[in-house]
Amino acid sequence: MNGAECLLRTLLAHGVDTCFMNPGTSEMQFVAALDRVPGMRGVLCLFEGVCSGAADGYARMLRRPAATLLHLGPGLGNGLSNFHNARKARSPVVSIVGQHTTGHLRCDAPLSADIEAFARTISGYVRTLERAEDMGEAAAATIRAACAPPGQIATLIVPADFSWSDGGEPGRPLGPAKPREAAPGPGAECVREAARILSAGEPAGLLLGGSALLERGSVAAGQLAAGTDVRVFANRYAARMVCGGGRFTPQRLAYFPEKAEPMLAGLKHLILVESQPPISFFGYPGRRSYLAPEDCALHVLAPIESNGTEALEALVEACGVGRIAPPAPGPEGTPSRPALPEGAGLSPDTIGRALASLLPEGSILSDEMVSSGEAILRHLSSAASYDLLPVTGGAIGQGLPVALGAALACPDRKVIALEADGSGMYTLQSLWTMARERVDVVTVILANRRYRILDIEMQRTGAGEMGRRANDMVDISRPDLDWVKLSEGMGVPATRATTADEFVTQFRAAVRQAGPALIEAVLE
Amino acid sequence: MNGAECLLRTLLAHGVDTCFMNPGTSEMQFVAALDRVPGMRGVLCLFEGVCSGAADGYARMLRRPAATLLHLGPGLGNGLSNFHNARKARSPVVSIVGQHTTGHLRCDAPLSADIEAFARTISGYVRTLERAEDMGEAAAATIRAACAPPGQIATLIVPADFSWSDGGEPGRPLGPAKPREAAPGPGAECVREAARILSAGEPAGLLLGGSALLERGSVAAGQLAAGTDVRVFANRYAARMVCGGGRFTPQRLAYFPEKAEPMLAGLKHLILVESQPPISFFGYPGRRSYLAPEDCALHVLAPIESNGTEALEALVEACGVGRIAPPAPGPEGTPSRPALPEGAGLSPDTIGRALASLLPEGSILSDEMVSSGEAILRHLSSAASYDLLPVTGGAIGQGLPVALGAALACPDRKVIALEADGSGMYTLQSLWTMARERVDVVTVILANRRYRILDIEMQRTGAGEMGRRANDMVDISRPDLDWVKLSEGMGVPATRATTADEFVTQFRAAVRQAGPALIEAVLE
Repeated sequence: MNGAECLLRTLLAHGVDTCFMNPGTSEMQFVAALDRVPGMRGVLCLFEGVCSGAADGYARMLRRPAATLLHLGPGLGNGLSNFHNARKARSPVVSIVGQHTTGHLRCDAPLSADIEAFARTISGYVRTLERAEDMGEAAAATIRAACAPPGQIATLIVPADFSWSDGGEPGRPLGPAKPREAAPGPGAECVREAARILSAGEPAGLLLGGSALLERGSVAAGQLAAGTDVRVFANRYAARMVCGGGRFTPQRLAYFPEKAEPMLAGLKHLILVESQPPISFFGYPGRRSYLAPEDCALHVLAPIESNGTEALEALVEACGVGRIAPPAPGPEGTPSRPALPEGAGLSPDTIGRALASLLPEGSILSDEMVSSGEAILRHLSSAASYDLLPVTGGAIGQGLPVALGAALACPDRKVIALEADGSGMYTLQSLWTMARERVDVVTVILANRRYRILDIEMQRTGAGEMGRRANDMVDISRPDLDWVKLSEGMGVPATRATTADEFVTQFRAAVRQAGPALIEAVLE
Repeated sequence: MNGAECLLRTLLAHGVDTCFMNPGTSEMQFVAALDRVPGMRGVLCLFEGVCSGAADGYARMLRRPAATLLHLGPGLGNGLSNFHNARKARSPVVSIVGQHTTGHLRCDAPLSADIEAFARTISGYVRTLERAEDMGEAAAATIRAACAPPGQIATLIVPADFSWSDGGEPGRPLGPAKPREAAPGPGAECVREAARILSAGEPAGLLLGGSALLERGSVAAGQLAAGTDVRVFANRYAARMVCGGGRFTPQRLAYFPEKAEPMLAGLKHLILVESQPPISFFGYPGRRSYLAPEDCALHVLAPIESNGTEALEALVEACGVGRIAPPAPGPEGTPSRPALPEGAGLSPDTIGRALASLLPEGSILSDEMVSSGEAILRHLSSAASYDLLPVTGGAIGQGLPVALGAALACPDRKVIALEADGSGMYTLQSLWTMARERVDVVTVILANRRYRILDIEMQRTGAGEMGRRANDMVDISRPDLDWVKLSEGMGVPATRATTADEFVTQFRAAVRQAGPALIEAVLE
């Protein structure tokens, strides 16, 4: 068996059965092996940033890695931005990168570049295959590295000639290929300390990230919130968060420090569960980056690489609040849906109300709304149960690929990509793969025809009033993007909504049908 | 004056007056300064790979740097692929990357990443500004580094707070800001040795790159070809080459080694002028990467960082062939243009004949045709005078951004982007900036709806026949891309040609009008 086949068999033996790829010459043997080794779903993307973002979305939903297959240093380069987001999401990804043949590496060929240097910017593990016969072992080691808790990007660089040489035996699985299964449980002392703080009477908060924001964690957090005085917050940049359906939902810390600081005001203790300390997204003149009060002590109940869900459940036990029934998620628990908006004009507020009313039970929301986000999301507490996939690393262009990957991971759920028009342009090629794979993704483009967030940031950094030239760098009209044409140009049916009525009609139709659709929501 | 203004003034003092940008929060002060400091042309691109590719095209035409302004590590990440091509083209580029505030760097914020590590993959010079008051000196040093012969990417990383702090005095120019002006001339011994080889009677060749492929170099090469037995070749991956107009044109080495090796067969000496030794693009099973015969001696007349034009002219002098009048370039010298193709069906061959007939004098051709390239370019020897901007680093997605940058550099010339449909998708956002800046770029999309080159490469790497799954990773139909809609979606008027007649009519109309246009040429 040649190296490519050995690699493929090793991936499959570990349960890695989906590969987002944009292959070139150096990867042809891997592509050819797809027909000889059944079981791998190859998903072609027309730009590498779609591959890396889709692998992120896939891992956020399934908590196990997909593979990506990219072509040499520059191919990996195009994937780095969404790999950055995946890194911050702690998504496990097995990144395979083709390399020139070992003989050709001695030449300074056009495509020659230091692939390891590209890879190290976003990978927790980087290995270049040094001998063809090590393929199985190296691939297995790379998969294990990707799955080391909490999950990371592990990169295997494969010289082309090792793909066509004899690759030896496939590597065998030695442990779980799901990071969460391998994560250590809570430390007894940390649990005792957290319970002591919650019972001591001083104002205390929990800041949750990682698994603590999923189903079980949300139940435990709800019990703690109901049975103690603790205030429960969510790390805004966590990979995934269960929401809606009437369940208990931690408060997400606001984006701007002026809004986030009051949320944490008065706390004497902040207990971290799979989360970093609370910090602002950017630094600003005359403002601290750290969001908790100066006299607030930080405690770690569960480090990022541990199992925060079990830690929360142990804390529930230690606090004796395990009998409290938290608000029940699911259709029964869903509060009465709000009335549908009506009339002319379309604002984030209108869209938020429409979504709250129309969101199908069990939807997955990929959020890259940027400036429209707050106004939309605040309506969704009264929506049916859904999973939110937030911005994690802040690299623009994650929304559409993450939606694609989530849809392939969860084919029985409806995915809604809520995407700003400026941000959508970075990886619009995602739409083509959505069309080819016929995934159930409804993309809503929030078209304000501006990098609107920069209007605010311009003021905040003290840059003052924008003149004409500055405005030209923030204004993305002239010409207006026509998202209906862009979408149709890649095979995704699209409509344009300029009123609440149009949006409601179009969104309702889009979620009812199978396959991808796009709505350009032109904001007033 | 704050740091951003100081940076802007330093750039302008060095003649760097165009900045391709995709700014974010950390770069807002620079954007605001565009209104306070007149003279900088800010060009907004909706994806960073458009910025880096446009800076490459600009530098290839003007041999002086443009600036790019990108947002933190991931923004730079998106630019790396086309920076790779610029690096291989030896294009000087001043790459400015915003960084978090120095205080915020202590937090592991969502967008935090090792920007220097991203930058080192493609830069010859990387500097992170360490004190606000060093801005002028650091910017001047970065520009000088970019212009060190033969030209390279120099990156200055600017923490946001140094943009709004007092930046001290702008840096002053200390030397030429054009790499070629600073390049050393020929070594007398190298010239004597080359002349000796050319007069010794053994089969000898010249392999030209860099400036040796421009106007003066082509005259000298023509004199040597006419007055001696030397065979003159062009490095296929050179940044720019003057062609057509009946002038002497070196033979470009073929892409595939089976075709390139016979071109060099029998040579006993190969003399390099601003070129690397001849190598194939990829390594293949059982094939050497090096293309010259085993017993061919390599000689260097002019290293890559030197002035190859002067070296060629010195060689002309030493060989005593200076009185020979080479074929005159320009309209008078243009051989009779071929007849226009007619009829149904559209092939690369037909398109080549149409272009040979219709190409406006002085056009700039940005070539990312991939599999259609050979069939088209071989017709263009009978075209009017034009500049060819070839693939340099092989990172896909250079064609449209390079065309954009070349058009902004040379507003009085017509730019033709010849682009494969697969390759065009990597940086299709270029079309929007073409529309906004109203540049004279006619884009021809060669739509074969396949990564056609990979059909060939699949065979060459010994991967064998393609099965259905492999074919799915090479086939980019299902759904077909509609380039007319994609183009119109970004504001560039577009048409579709499926016959020779339609192509001729549409191309003729497109080059006659001002502003951008796109033709989707659907190949049979």
